[in-house]
Amino acid sequence: MNNSPLPPETERSIRESFARQGLMRTLGVVIDDLAPGRVTLRLPVTDAVSQQHGFVHAGASFALGDSAAGYAALSLMGADAEVLTIEMKINMISPAVGRFLFAQGEVIKAGRRVTVVRATVEAEDDQGRRKTVAILQGTMIPS
Amino acid sequence: MNNSPLPPETERSIRESFARQGLMRTLGVVIDDLAPGRVTLRLPVTDAVSQQHGFVHAGASFALGDSAAGYAALSLMGADAEVLTIEMKINMISPAVGRFLFAQGEVIKAGRRVTVVRATVEAEDDQGRRKTVAILQGTMIPS
Amino acid sequence: MNNSPLPPETERSIRESFARQGLMRTLGVVIDDLAPGRVTLRLPVTDAVSQQHGFVHAGASFALGDSAAGYAALSLMGADAEVLTIEMKINMISPAVGRFLFAQGEVIKAGRRVTVVRATVEAEDDQGRRKTVAILQGTMIPS
Amino acid sequence: MNNSPLPPETERSIRESFARQGLMRTLGVVIDDLAPGRVTLRLPVTDAVSQQHGFVHAGASFALGDSAAGYAALSLMGADAEVLTIEMKINMISPAVGRFLFAQGEVIKAGRRVTVVRATVEAEDDQGRRKTVAILQGTMIPS
Repeated sequence: MNNSPLPPETERSIRESFARQGLMRTLGVVIDDLAPGRVTLRLPVTDAVSQQHGFVHAGASFALGDSAAGYAALSLMGADAEVLTIEMKINMISPAVGRFLFAQGEVIKAGRRVTVVRATVEAEDDQGRRKTVAILQGTMIPS
Repeated sequence: MNNSPLPPETERSIRESFARQGLMRTLGVVIDDLAPGRVTLRLPVTDAVSQQHGFVHAGASFALGDSAAGYAALSLMGADAEVLTIEMKINMISPAVGRFLFAQGEVIKAGRRVTVVRATVEAEDDQGRRKTVAILQGTMIPS
Repeated sequence: MNNSPLPPETERSIRESFARQGLMRTLGVVIDDLAPGRVTLRLPVTDAVSQQHGFVHAGASFALGDSAAGYAALSLMGADAEVLTIEMKINMISPAVGRFLFAQGEVIKAGRRVTVVRATVEAEDDQGRRKTVAILQGTMIPS
Repeated sequence: MNNSPLPPETERSIRESFARQGLMRTLGVVIDDLAPGRVTLRLPVTDAVSQQHGFVHAGASFALGDSAAGYAALSLMGADAEVLTIEMKINMISPAVGRFLFAQGEVIKAGRRVTVVRATVEAEDDQGRRKTVAILQGTMIPS
């Protein structure tokens, strides 16, 4: 992770890859921020992603965090790279309610063969207050 | 797990809970089979659940497996119970391609405070052949 | 997994690797059974592996299960191979008490780049009755 | 987490609990630092904790991180509390070599029923330089 901007070709590569993710389109997810080793995605909270109590389904929080983590990994690779999740774990912290979920993915260790990532999922309410709802930890490989 | 049928009120409770899961509706998931401690869900594979290579997104496999595991846990509780995922881990086994994904959730240990669950996600191709694409292991609590 | 015996050179390779694991010696662990894709290790339960309530420490159950899973992965590779754990997750099922712990590691998917494994840890009491105390799921890579 | 010191009775409770952990004694682990929500343990690196390549065994890194995380959880509870690990996941970051391993456990969310924790394991070499070797994420419950 660093403060230099993302190379334009890497940014283009990430945006093109993201645009091909049908699940992200189905869930209404957009890219909120891109930086080297750190990517933030945003999910609008609607009934379309709920579980039985009306909270956001763990599967939606997972999908958001997993994609944010994957693009964080990709942001440190070359422009033609692709990554695959090989495993990912989520701990639910609080019931996910609000207007938006934000997932920030970050790279813990970018290795030659595997990249270890984390993501934090936060819910934002109508007043713009944020609360952590889930944390993820997992592994990506170049594909 | 056993071979006795699910009590009718438990089955009704599961079906009502499932019908309230907006994410399952969004993804087109249906209940395939219900038994005590073992629940199978089915997801139609379309572009709506894809990742950037055209495979099913890890987030969709996760959502399917997590829900199957949660309802497996619920199937061993009383009719008015509800469960929440507190944590869940997925290992991707093979690229998920095919016509349908099936997730079978099962209860490993139903405890008073926490229930340990597993799920296996399989992809089925046009010829009806199945292949394991992911395995999940996690924890549910009564809510 | 299959029923053919382990090739002698693979068995020798596993036994030599195991003999170099200082932690296994420190904990008193021995090899109980070796088969292709399935390895069982045994830990004598003493105060040397306890946690604060007198149960076996989660760290000892983890070490036993992780090693069993790693050797299960190794049992499917060539004689000169070595494996490394890249990630592993444990769910505790019951308090681990008894005379011995047994961990059976098994290979879920042996891939070219990563191998997905599971392990089950059981406690055996004075009457030889066994009870599952933990389950593990993780990833190994050739090293 | 905060900067106030640990209440003396909580510190005494943690030190007494730690002293009863046979595995920590077997591995030579000592308490390095105690603060509310943040506990650091230290392991001397010797052949007694090695794996087959001479690195520290994943099981020893896990045991260290798991205990640090457990005592971090305990540090936010009352003096008579006890905690149990219900699940924990470790990702290995780098081969663990050096003179000492340090694990810092921290509380991400202290809940009424479950506490979510993380731990970071670092190796320190002869020159006192530290490097992250593993990260853990898991769940504790009051026992």
